[in-house]
Amino acid sequence: MAEKKLILVCNDDGITAPGIRNLIEVCKGFGDVVVVAPDKPQSAMGHAITINATLRVQAMRSESALEYACSGTPVDCIKLAVNKILHRKPDLLVSGINHGSNASINVIYSGTMSAAMEGAMEGIPSIGFSLCNHSIDADFTLSRQVAHTIISKALNDPMPAGICLNVNIPDIAPEMLKGIKVCRQARANWEEEFDERRDPNGRPYYWLTGVFKNYDQGTDTDIWALENNYVSLVPCQFDITAHSSLAHYKSWEDNA
Amino acid sequence: MAEKKLILVCNDDGITAPGIRNLIEVCKGFGDVVVVAPDKPQSAMGHAITINATLRVQAMRSESALEYACSGTPVDCIKLAVNKILHRKPDLLVSGINHGSNASINVIYSGTMSAAMEGAMEGIPSIGFSLCNHSIDADFTLSRQVAHTIISKALNDPMPAGICLNVNIPDIAPEMLKGIKVCRQARANWEEEFDERRDPNGRPYYWLTGVFKNYDQGTDTDIWALENNYVSLVPCQFDITAHSSLAHYKSWEDNA
Repeated sequence: MAEKKLILVCNDDGITAPGIRNLIEVCKGFGDVVVVAPDKPQSAMGHAITINATLRVQAMRSESALEYACSGTPVDCIKLAVNKILHRKPDLLVSGINHGSNASINVIYSGTMSAAMEGAMEGIPSIGFSLCNHSIDADFTLSRQVAHTIISKALNDPMPAGICLNVNIPDIAPEMLKGIKVCRQARANWEEEFDERRDPNGRPYYWLTGVFKNYDQGTDTDIWALENNYVSLVPCQFDITAHSSLAHYKSWEDNA
Repeated sequence: MAEKKLILVCNDDGITAPGIRNLIEVCKGFGDVVVVAPDKPQSAMGHAITINATLRVQAMRSESALEYACSGTPVDCIKLAVNKILHRKPDLLVSGINHGSNASINVIYSGTMSAAMEGAMEGIPSIGFSLCNHSIDADFTLSRQVAHTIISKALNDPMPAGICLNVNIPDIAPEMLKGIKVCRQARANWEEEFDERRDPNGRPYYWLTGVFKNYDQGTDTDIWALENNYVSLVPCQFDITAHSSLAHYKSWEDNA
């Protein structure tokens, strides 16, 4: 009989968020589950790690998963899990289910996806799941179905080295879903608008807000897939070398 | 007469760090300089942004550069600079000079490089500079020469869209330098070792430490260049789609 699968679960919304609770339930059907997740919301932390402060890890009781709340960032959680908590390399790392889209350029800011990327850097097959709905009350019915399908595939199909998967789920009723689309990251950006306010002493402070702008007309992008009722699946790599620009800079080598 | 160049300067070690002070001095020779940098160290913040807290910006006096200290991350600094402080898009963004290497996988964790990446996302030609020496007392003589050379080239050679440059400088005497090498990011990783300690109440806490491990034997990598007394220059992209893995996942589309 094959050894039971070991699945590591993380997120960036914090260990109590509905998204991760739903993901844990899905994972329990596939093997042993260990959860190491932030003890508070850590959205938009990107690939931040904690090097100038200490980290705490608190074991929590739970029914059939081992759970640990960590004081650090999502990437800290993965490093702690791999190096201090788990006794062997997990068969799969899943991160999420994020409350909100991590499609397109959001992947760069996302703590959910940075946890998956860190897993890939550690040689663990890793997937980030995100639902395109920020609400704490979002309906995760479709997301659970999609996570079940994708985790099942991932456990039976070795992931290429150096990548992780960015899976985004449209906020629609399950019967509306058309399927999964393998996509590239859409060219898009946030147009920031800082909301300037005054504190009680009259001094200015700012809230970061912004509007998402998609400049990409391609039908092979994650944004297109989501707008057309598909789950988007983008393989992502941590080698960010712009290989196509190496030749452009070759002339700079001559007269340094 | 051509309009004076506008150069935006940021870093992640904080606005008072010797590295950025040296970079500001270099930039003054090329045009108008505006500095928007963190008011405290923000190393290893990756692409974190501040969405659950307010931001402060404090104008500082300085001789011939406009300087602003920001309470947020390096990426926050760029967003604030572009949207609230600058009246036009800068001709160049430079970040650093970082105290410590951002070669290889360090680029993923680096606040210095995330500032440059955010610049690229805003359509600004952007460069991160890092010296392979963490010391506050590091000698920036060679780094200043290199920054001068590279900034001069960058202002006269339009940068391809969607990329920024990751420039690392070896910690050697200027006369040892062999030149600039255009490189790819070496395949390497940090092997973490968590230093476990006990607080005065006997409860455990952790410090993240680690050892850098280079698994890449190529002579076309940034690590090879630095070890062989070259400045490494890696063009980096924010489209992290693993295009070479798209075909692998095509079969997943069929039976979602």
